[in-house]
Amino acid sequence: MKGCSIMTNKQVGGLIVMFGAAGDLARRKLYPSLFRLYQRQLLSENFALLGNSRREWSDDYFREIVLDSISDQKADETTVNNFIQHFFYVSHDATKAEDYDNLKTSMDKLAEEFNTGGKNLYYLSTAPSIFPDITKGLKDAGIVTDGGTHRVILEKPFGTDLASAGELNKALEISFDEKDIYRIDHYLGKEMVQNILTTRYFNPVVEAMLNSQYVSNIQITLAEDMPVGTRGGYYDKSGAIRDMFQNHILQVATLLGMELPENLDQDAVHASKLAFMKEIASFTPEQTDKQMVRAQYTASSDGEFINYLDENEVAKDSVTETYLAGYFQVNNDRWGNVPFYFKTGKALAVKHTTVEIILNEKVNEADIAKPCNPDQTRITFSIQPETGIAFHLNQKLPGEALAPNLVTVNSDVDELIAAYVPDAYEKLIYDALIGDQTNFSTWNELAEQWRIVDSIIENWKDDGITSLPTYEGKSRGPKEADELLRQNGHCWVQ
Amino acid sequence: MKGCSIMTNKQVGGLIVMFGAAGDLARRKLYPSLFRLYQRQLLSENFALLGNSRREWSDDYFREIVLDSISDQKADETTVNNFIQHFFYVSHDATKAEDYDNLKTSMDKLAEEFNTGGKNLYYLSTAPSIFPDITKGLKDAGIVTDGGTHRVILEKPFGTDLASAGELNKALEISFDEKDIYRIDHYLGKEMVQNILTTRYFNPVVEAMLNSQYVSNIQITLAEDMPVGTRGGYYDKSGAIRDMFQNHILQVATLLGMELPENLDQDAVHASKLAFMKEIASFTPEQTDKQMVRAQYTASSDGEFINYLDENEVAKDSVTETYLAGYFQVNNDRWGNVPFYFKTGKALAVKHTTVEIILNEKVNEADIAKPCNPDQTRITFSIQPETGIAFHLNQKLPGEALAPNLVTVNSDVDELIAAYVPDAYEKLIYDALIGDQTNFSTWNELAEQWRIVDSIIENWKDDGITSLPTYEGKSRGPKEADELLRQNGHCWVQ
Repeated sequence: MKGCSIMTNKQVGGLIVMFGAAGDLARRKLYPSLFRLYQRQLLSENFALLGNSRREWSDDYFREIVLDSISDQKADETTVNNFIQHFFYVSHDATKAEDYDNLKTSMDKLAEEFNTGGKNLYYLSTAPSIFPDITKGLKDAGIVTDGGTHRVILEKPFGTDLASAGELNKALEISFDEKDIYRIDHYLGKEMVQNILTTRYFNPVVEAMLNSQYVSNIQITLAEDMPVGTRGGYYDKSGAIRDMFQNHILQVATLLGMELPENLDQDAVHASKLAFMKEIASFTPEQTDKQMVRAQYTASSDGEFINYLDENEVAKDSVTETYLAGYFQVNNDRWGNVPFYFKTGKALAVKHTTVEIILNEKVNEADIAKPCNPDQTRITFSIQPETGIAFHLNQKLPGEALAPNLVTVNSDVDELIAAYVPDAYEKLIYDALIGDQTNFSTWNELAEQWRIVDSIIENWKDDGITSLPTYEGKSRGPKEADELLRQNGHCWVQ
Repeated sequence: MKGCSIMTNKQVGGLIVMFGAAGDLARRKLYPSLFRLYQRQLLSENFALLGNSRREWSDDYFREIVLDSISDQKADETTVNNFIQHFFYVSHDATKAEDYDNLKTSMDKLAEEFNTGGKNLYYLSTAPSIFPDITKGLKDAGIVTDGGTHRVILEKPFGTDLASAGELNKALEISFDEKDIYRIDHYLGKEMVQNILTTRYFNPVVEAMLNSQYVSNIQITLAEDMPVGTRGGYYDKSGAIRDMFQNHILQVATLLGMELPENLDQDAVHASKLAFMKEIASFTPEQTDKQMVRAQYTASSDGEFINYLDENEVAKDSVTETYLAGYFQVNNDRWGNVPFYFKTGKALAVKHTTVEIILNEKVNEADIAKPCNPDQTRITFSIQPETGIAFHLNQKLPGEALAPNLVTVNSDVDELIAAYVPDAYEKLIYDALIGDQTNFSTWNELAEQWRIVDSIIENWKDDGITSLPTYEGKSRGPKEADELLRQNGHCWVQ
């Protein structure tokens, strides 16, 4: 095996200013990710985290919160104790100018104490509505105008349409250059999502397959096996199109469909991605009608899941989709009319994220008249929960005549399991600390993503429907999604 | 999984006339293969085998021989008893005309008793020197001029050069048409050798890789881990070039290198094979000198293997190669200057047969100056003892940057192991009985194979060497074989 071990990655320090330090995401994902980076010695002793929120906490109380969040990590006591010494807290109201002065004082103190080298990362883990206050406050108090580097990192949702996303972006631009804005799409931190580009780039034979001559269609599936739960209020305003399609699905499709960049530098990668997204046309009303399937889940037969319309904070007459299937085509030289199918939904039978590249097949005469068979030759990128790449090829089975049989050629799972698999956040925070924007969304990309989504939502608004098709909780999804492919002579392979 | 089970293959009967019924090959391979075909119900009750040799045996005694040969097969007693009732014996001197009359009488009797439908298969498991006597005898006695089908099946060696092979073929043609001559190259009966064509034919993406744009070089290895043993007399006249290269290596290289036939009918397959072989130029003296490495084994350090020159029936001053490495190029549109490397030898460290398709690689800047690395991206057909197909591709390893690491993508071994893997002879005898010549060598192919080999041997005769390089028994082979590739910037991957 070629390549270097993870330990050759460089150590990094810096001051992380965590807005929304008391929040759920910070506790569930961010502190554990930082701890693992520290354990792996990727985070140096020259790091400090300054948490803030409106709550009046002491450093010690904050440290208890952080300790609690990493309590299920395997670690020796010394490492935990050393780690926690890097955490500090200051209470902060984003709307109060004087609180930024306090923040600056604390930051300066920590920068000196931990010798953070002028590196600052502002983690906006708060409601987007207060982003303008924060960025303006940081500027007015002279924090981000100080020397050194000042980067900002933030999560979805990044707006609810192109206009609101543009407003949000303007708020960030008060204080940060595009090159310092790290917009997380956590799917881009997933190992096998990143491996799509690696596989294409470093295997000319795989890249040679990725065009309409060899590919029949592409199927991207992001299936969730849980209902909306406590997030009904957010979800009913968002729907699958904003929650999953606008970001994750479009980004994954782009990594697969874009022209290969000349090199793997972030600028080259983002240029390729943007060019591909621009080739995805906005949806016309006819296309929206023909190429998109929306549905809502109903109760599961075992009674565990209730009807979506009965969920807390969901409007009784909601036409928000909990399931979305559809396709787009990119009529460039590479892809001709190859459909990029996608499906995503909540409360489905199985949780899995996969990218299936269905290959054109040389079929036996006898098979030509058969209906579409899910056993198709294909390349599979399994993203979660399984990870790996598989080739499903026609092979001769022992003892048989020279007839084709589908045999799966899987990546060496042992090798992958043996390696340490970092969480997406762990990798993305590290990337932000070292200043690598490759696996973040640029504003230009986001704008294209919203353009596409807006075109669909606009068409939906005009179609006057008062209810959506349904699918039973814990099922594979609505039958309309199967019909969508059948009309093109295709079928889902899973 | 698509495809039908083996039991849908049709049952076949017929009268097998086994010349050399007392011989080693018949006992070791042919009777066990027939028994397994019978067990699998591919050989019907309408089959009979009439063994012959010069020995004066009874049917019962012959049946004891056959029973002994299948004694290690798992079987119930009834099946064994039923099977053995199909075996008969007649003593026969190939040079005596009257013995053919006896043979005919026995054949007619068995054809009636077993209702073999006029199907006759003559298995020539004797010394090639008596083939002319046999075929002439069969004709003169009116046996092969009878109605029905009359096929002949025979083993290597098929001559020692083009001239002697031509003589042998003339002897066959006395009584048989080309369409009824089944020349066994038992490598063509091996599962994964047959799978080379299946994989190419039914996976357009694999076929798309097989050209100079994507392939750096091809490496065919047929390594044996045993010395010549009791076969020194035969081997010292043959050498690796006639024993392995003339037949198996050239046939395997052809299956990989030929243009894909329009369909899998035997005529189309043989036409493609012949066209490819014609594109392999005869070796000039300069090419022979530069592109071929010969060597002889010396004793293994553990003393188990002795020097080749000390083996029984081997000339003390022999320059017969027990190891051969080399390459040829096919300068057609598909292959440009891609070298087809091969190596084969006796008394090596590990027994294995593999076909490695080494891919052109997009390398990291940092790796460009490195010496050739056996960890190359490639497709591997493992033929024996392991069987399967593997893709060795560059993948991102978890936790690493977007740098390439070689990860093996193997065929699903469980699926292959679960299937019954027939012996090569089992499949080839069945093919001959049903009249399928696809996996046999045609005379035209053999003539090309001998043309190529003759050109090399002629050059060797003229080079005046009196000894060969050596390699230690149980080693990987001579260092000259590594140097052969190094001069082209390549290296063996195993």
